[in-house]
Formats: sequence, structure tokens, C-alpha cells
Amino acid sequence: MTTKEAINRLNQLELQEFAYSHAMGILSYDDETVAPKGSVVPRGKTMGVLSELSYKLSTGDEAREILDALKEHYDELSPEDKRRADLRDKHMRELRAIPMEEYVAYSELLNEAGNVWREAKNKSDYKLFEPYLGKIIETQKRFAGLVRPDMDPYDYCLDQYEEGLTQEKCEAFFGTLRAHIVPLLEKIKAAKPIDAGFLSTLFPVEAQRELSKKVMAVEGLPEENCILGEVEHPFTTGFSKYDVRITTHYYEDAFLSSLYSVIHEGGHALYDLHSDDRFCFTSLEGGVSMGVHESQSRFYENIIGRSREFVGLIYPEIVRLCPALASHSEEELWRAANVAQPSLIRTEADELTYPLHIMVRYEMEKAMIRGDVKPADLPQMWNALYKEYLGIDVPDDKNGILQDSHWSGGGIGYFPSYALGSAYGAQLLAKMREDFDVREAVRSHQLIKVNNWLEDKIWKYGSLYKPAELMEKAFGAPFDPTYYTDYLERKFTEVYGL
Amino acid sequence: MTTKEAINRLNQLELQEFAYSHAMGILSYDDETVAPKGSVVPRGKTMGVLSELSYKLSTGDEAREILDALKEHYDELSPEDKRRADLRDKHMRELRAIPMEEYVAYSELLNEAGNVWREAKNKSDYKLFEPYLGKIIETQKRFAGLVRPDMDPYDYCLDQYEEGLTQEKCEAFFGTLRAHIVPLLEKIKAAKPIDAGFLSTLFPVEAQRELSKKVMAVEGLPEENCILGEVEHPFTTGFSKYDVRITTHYYEDAFLSSLYSVIHEGGHALYDLHSDDRFCFTSLEGGVSMGVHESQSRFYENIIGRSREFVGLIYPEIVRLCPALASHSEEELWRAANVAQPSLIRTEADELTYPLHIMVRYEMEKAMIRGDVKPADLPQMWNALYKEYLGIDVPDDKNGILQDSHWSGGGIGYFPSYALGSAYGAQLLAKMREDFDVREAVRSHQLIKVNNWLEDKIWKYGSLYKPAELMEKAFGAPFDPTYYTDYLERKFTEVYGL
Repeated sequence: MTTKEAINRLNQLELQEFAYSHAMGILSYDDETVAPKGSVVPRGKTMGVLSELSYKLSTGDEAREILDALKEHYDELSPEDKRRADLRDKHMRELRAIPMEEYVAYSELLNEAGNVWREAKNKSDYKLFEPYLGKIIETQKRFAGLVRPDMDPYDYCLDQYEEGLTQEKCEAFFGTLRAHIVPLLEKIKAAKPIDAGFLSTLFPVEAQRELSKKVMAVEGLPEENCILGEVEHPFTTGFSKYDVRITTHYYEDAFLSSLYSVIHEGGHALYDLHSDDRFCFTSLEGGVSMGVHESQSRFYENIIGRSREFVGLIYPEIVRLCPALASHSEEELWRAANVAQPSLIRTEADELTYPLHIMVRYEMEKAMIRGDVKPADLPQMWNALYKEYLGIDVPDDKNGILQDSHWSGGGIGYFPSYALGSAYGAQLLAKMREDFDVREAVRSHQLIKVNNWLEDKIWKYGSLYKPAELMEKAFGAPFDPTYYTDYLERKFTEVYGL
Repeated sequence: MTTKEAINRLNQLELQEFAYSHAMGILSYDDETVAPKGSVVPRGKTMGVLSELSYKLSTGDEAREILDALKEHYDELSPEDKRRADLRDKHMRELRAIPMEEYVAYSELLNEAGNVWREAKNKSDYKLFEPYLGKIIETQKRFAGLVRPDMDPYDYCLDQYEEGLTQEKCEAFFGTLRAHIVPLLEKIKAAKPIDAGFLSTLFPVEAQRELSKKVMAVEGLPEENCILGEVEHPFTTGFSKYDVRITTHYYEDAFLSSLYSVIHEGGHALYDLHSDDRFCFTSLEGGVSMGVHESQSRFYENIIGRSREFVGLIYPEIVRLCPALASHSEEELWRAANVAQPSLIRTEADELTYPLHIMVRYEMEKAMIRGDVKPADLPQMWNALYKEYLGIDVPDDKNGILQDSHWSGGGIGYFPSYALGSAYGAQLLAKMREDFDVREAVRSHQLIKVNNWLEDKIWKYGSLYKPAELMEKAFGAPFDPTYYTDYLERKFTEVYGL
């Protein structure tokens, strides 16, 4: 096979892989947004068949021949095609290590587990979900052992979401965070409390839907390529740069919940929407890792979205849509949106206590994968960690261990990337400030400057570079979590007037 | 291959075919209901890949070997498996006659055509749609010639939607209808007009949504397996008996439009929801033909839905949700829902003039496929036929040739099945009455009796019998369109007090 032939055949193969993943993605999106309950049966069948076919495609003779040819001509390949070959090589090794029946059975298990988790959460009954979580943990451990017997199984899980992340790095990173967040929280506890009671002002869902539209426009999300769905637990799914779906959940008495959810998911969407055109329908399209993805979403949610300037930008729309809020000023709203206070629900947590929620999950996952705790005892461990890290009592499983969908979807190892992404974001901000006045850009409704900068440094590259490499290029320096702790200290000193 | 092996492999093959068709079905449903406009690009790619793979699956070595084995052991097969073998044989011949590239290109063309049709309809600009319709007609003719060179091409189209239907049968059938409908309409023209002006009373969309829910419950549609979406042009799509989607479109000043749309699509859904369990994920699951399908939907819409008793059943809910209607009695509402008057839009047409809309389309399709008229001249022909058959002037293409989605989806030959289905329904009613008092069942909120009867005679059989065979079994006699004309004469004599 010549290099040119190999690339042509690679393009065809990746297009087919795209088609399977697109079809399965739409089935999942449909499931999360509108599908009737009974659809679990046919969807399970279809997911089983498609994941089997897609597995065969990615590990079959054609894929093998292409990969061999790519390796043979490696030196002649463009940097893009080298990266495609590397990713394919890694992925092929993973897939070939896992027997097909197990791979298919796992995909069917996850389809069922998602539904059971939803029911268990609604009923606040962990017992329903326990056997599924147990099987998911066992499967994750087994897969880790099969694919990388040389690696610690939880390190393998972490690496799935952030190439190169390890427990060692996590411990150091979380250690730094804890050393700064805990004393900062103590100071805040002693400071004058911020009035945030008015945030529970009734904001009708229909008006919140309008606010979402407005915010999506401000953020620069194109209607033609990005829509908003309504779900239990918000997420983003990018099918291609032409079609990215974000989702939210409305609470009439907590409008900030959806507002920041939309901004957060919008950050993910922007990343997926701006891959370079030449990556379309190849393995290089879309975000490179969950850590980098979360850096974009949490940058938008917190650094931009909870800034004084952004709150000022959308304040007029907020009071127009909910006149009862007009008795509170922009300044009051900004402070209220930044109250730092330990709470139960991760997705509703403030910017400062958020990493503590992540640390709880990190400890849980570590224990799960190491087998230090039985599935039946996980809620107890969860509750104990919330007491230890956040000082609060968990009243029930719905507000405790069942709150997140991640584990039901097999996402063990995902959570740390949220905290890492937040830290990436703070370092990006520092770098962005060298190029222009970010506050001024937001104040003057020129988020396009922010977007252009991020597109140029991050978004357009899709999955071309490894996460750490991409971030170092963007930072012009190695990753340094003190940008994040400095940012938090500066910000909360201002918010609380410490 | 033993018979047992052949059946096992057939089950596997049909499960894979189900998975492709399910995945493509969800992509289309997503397209029609929520997808952003830009999604046309990735969906086109994915549809192209999946239809190619599904084509290969259905025509490949494995499928051929299975079919050969089934034919070899034909005499040992159960009636169900004989039918599966026959259907597969027919389908295989069709697929093998069409070169794969053409099959794939056609599926991509239809994906695009659907979007262009929607735009053309919105802009009332036939010119936009014309080249697509032209290509669709050419492709249909070409495929007909490839698959059945021995058959008249339009007969081939008709047979696609109703096995065994021909132009000869259509001409006879439509002739009978015309002979009865035209004089009946003349009598109605001379009768005292019915007041239906109050039907444009403003009925807020939110309240109509509630009415839809209520009506779906009355009709016996299980929430677990059937949901209602909102679209431009209502349709039903059944992925399996566990998951059937119906759709509607709300007009605030014409609540009956959505009401009868929901009842109509609900009839389709009931059919798909009640295939026997043993047919799940095989080629025998779901309705056997469009004619039989329309017999169920139009039976529910008109024979049940527009009956005095059914209107009585939902009247309290209608006035509860829209109190402005309370000044009109049940009786007035029933008459207004049955006004017979030539109009522009097929889906809004009354029960009596409806077949005339179908005859227009039948004449159009015949001319298209015979090549008697150029694509550019189709709107003119449409408008002339509306003048001739319905006596009305078509003001623009949006309300004329662009009103229906069928042709944009390749559905040439589909329309006659609507009229045929209506006639089937009238004969089913006559037979049902031999078993119980249908009016009384509706009046006393016992639609379950109607559903049980239809399940027993039609629904449970899925695609086991050929359409004509199934109907004859249910009728206990050959099909006879005079049941339909008698029914129309009786009904409209009562409605108009002729």
C-alpha cells in the first residue's frame, strides 16, 4: 500500500467510524431528551449491534492493514497523519485486548445502567443501582488489567479522560488546592455573609428558556449548529462541528442553576464547533481530552460567566424577563452568584468549593477500583467524605451518591478532569491578559475577542496535540496550578471584601 | 446449513438489519423534530455510510447463503418463516437489481431533498424543490425499470406501498368513489350550511398539548412506549413495538387540525405497538403495508374520531381547556367537525372530499412516472387538477404542490393507500358491528373493545400476511368499496340532515 492509498483508506475507515459513533450518539441523545421509557429494549439491541460492528470495523483486517501501512511509511506522514496513526495504534491495542463479547456486553450494560440510575435517583434508592455500579466497577478493572497490565488500574482510568494524568499528579494537584482553599474558606466563614436569598425568586421556565437563548447568542453559539435540549442532568454532545447539542435543566426557584449550566455546556460546544475544517469526520475532530474540554466549559462558566462584567452584560435581560429581580442591583447579583459555601450538589456548587466535590469523587473512585470498599458500602463512604471535606451531612442518596450520571455511563476517572480543567482555565486567562484586556472585552460585549483567542490557541487544533502539549503551547510554559489558586484568592478576596 | 442453523442466522441478520433501520430512523426523527439546520452535513455522511453498510448486509454472502438454505428447506419452514423467506427473496431481488452506488446516492439525495423541500415550502418557492423532485422521479423510474422491467413503472411504485395494487385497480376504485362522492357533494352544496366558524376560536398551544395527552390516553396509547413530538408535517415512526413516535403540529386558531392529527397518527401507532411479541426485531414486526396502516389511522381519525360518540367523549375536556368553546354544544361540535367542503390542504380535508385530494395526487404521480409532464410544469398541472376535482383555485405552491412531504422522501405511489385505507376501514367497521355495538362502546368509554378487536384481527399479525390476504381474513369476504361509499352516504346524510 502506498502512503497515499493508506491515507485514502484511512479516511474511509474513519468516516465509517464517525457514522457509527454519530448514530450511537444520536440514540443516546434521544434517550436522554425525549425517548419513551420502553425504548430501552430496542435501543439496547441496536446499541449492541452497532457497538459490535464498530468494534469489528476498528479492529478488523482493513484497519490492521491500514495501520501497518501507516507505521511502515511513518516518516513520510504529515504531523496530522502521524497523530492519527498514533491514536489509532493506541486505540487498536485497547480494543484488541478486550474480547468483543465483553465489549458488547458492557455497552448493553451501560444502556441499562443509565435507565436504572435515573430511576434510582428519582426514588433516592441506591440499592436499585448498586448491582449495576458493582458490575461497572468490575468491568472497568477488568478492562484496565487487559489493556494495560503494566499500569495501575485507576491510573489507566484517569488516562482515558486525560492522557498522561496519574494519581501521583492528582495527589500533588489536589494537595496544592486544599492548602489554599481550606484557609480561604475559613476566612470567608468569618466574613460578612452575602445575601443570596433573592436568587430563589420565582423565574418561570418559559422566561428562563428565553434567557438561555439570549445567553447562547452572547456566548457566540450559532443557532444553525447548536441547539439546547432539556434533560435531568445537563451534558454536551458534539456529533461534528456542524451539529453540537447542549442541554440544561430548569428550576423555577433557582434560575442561576440553568443559567450557568447553559454557559458551561456552551463552553464545551464552542470547542467542538471550532475544530479546523480539515479534521471533519476524522479522529482529529473535536476536543482532545476531558480536561481540556472542562477547561473551556469552566473557563466560560466561572472565569467569564461569574465575572462582574459578564453579570453586567446579561443583567438587563435578567430583570426584563423576571422583573421581580429588579430590586437587586448588578453588584448584588454578581456577589450572590459568587457566594462560597459548602453544599450538597456538585453541579450547583460555587467555584471555590467545587474542587472539594471533585476530591470526594476522586477518593471514591480510587477506593472503588482498588477494591477497598464494597459497592454496598459506597453511600456510607460518600457521606463520610462529604462530612470530612465539606462539613455537611448528606440527607439521602438522591442528594448524595446518586446525584451524578457519570458512573452509570462508565465514566470512572472523569471527575478529576473537572478540577484540572478549572486550573487550566486560570492559566489561560493569565496568558490571554497578555494579549488584551479581557475584562474590557467582556464589558463591551466583545466576547468575540475571547472566542477568537481560544479558537486560535485551543479549539482549532481539535485532537491534533496531546492535552499537556496543547496546553503548554497555549500557556507558553508548563502547567502551574498556582495560577488557579492565585486566581481564586484574588477573586474571593474581592467578592467578600476580605 | 440445517433449517435450524438457517433460522438462527436469519434471526441474527434481521437483528442487524433492524439496528441499521432503527439508527437511520432515529436520525430522521431527530432531523424532523429537533436537529439544528447544520446537521444536514453530518447526517448526510452518516446516512450514506449506514445505508451502504445495510445494503451490503442485505445483499452480501451471508444473506445469500441464508436465503439459499431457506429456499432449500422451504417445505419444513413454519408459515412465519416461509413469509420471512418470501419477503427476503423479494427484497433481495430489488436490492441486487439496484447498483449500490445508486442506492447510496439516492439515500443522500433524499436527505438533502427533505431539507430543500422544507425551505421551499416555507418560501412557497417550487423552483427550489424542482431539481430535487426531478431527480427523485428519474431515480424512481430507473429503479422500477431495473427491478421489474416486466412491470409498468407506476404499478411498481404502487406495489411498494400496497403489495398487489395496480393502476387498473385504482381506476376502478376511484371510479366507484367518484360516482358516489360527486353527487353527494352536490346534495350537500344545496343543503343548509353548517356553522363551523367557532372552530377558529383561539385555543392556546399549551392547552392543546394537554388535550393531545388526554386524547392519547383515551385512544389507549401507552405513555411508556409512545410519545408525541412536534413537527411541520405530522407522521408516525415505529422503531419497534416498544417505541413508537407520533407527531403533530399546533395551530392556535384551528385546534381540530392537531386533534385529528393526533388521533390519526395514534391509529398508526396502535398498529405498530401491537405486533405479536414473537415478531420482535424480525422482518415481520410492524404493519404490513401503507394501505393497511392507513386503514387503521383513518379508521381512528374518521370513523371513531369524528363520530358523535367520540366527540361526546372528549367534549368536556375540550371546553375545560378552552372555555370560550363552551357556548357551543356537543352536537354543534360534532357537526362542525364533519363539514364537507372542498379545500386546499389534504391533511386538513374533511372525510368526504379527502379522496378527491388523493385522486389529484394519483393523476400527478401517474403523469410524473410516465413522463407525461416535465418537473417544471407540475405546479400548473396540480392547480388545474384542483380546479377540476375540487373546484378551487390554488393561490400558491405552499398551499399547492409543496404541501406534502411525501415526494421529497421518495414516496411516489404512497398516496393511493390513504384512500384505499379509508375504504378498508369502512368494511372493518361493518364486520366489527357484527361482534358488538361499536357506537355504544365508544360512548361508554370502552375503546378497549375496539382495540382488542383490531388487535385480534389485524395488529397482532404484523407483516405475516399479504395485505389483501390479511384484509380478507378480517372481513371474512373480499374487499368491496361499496361499504365505504355506503358509509359515506349514511354518515353525511345524518350530518347534513339530507
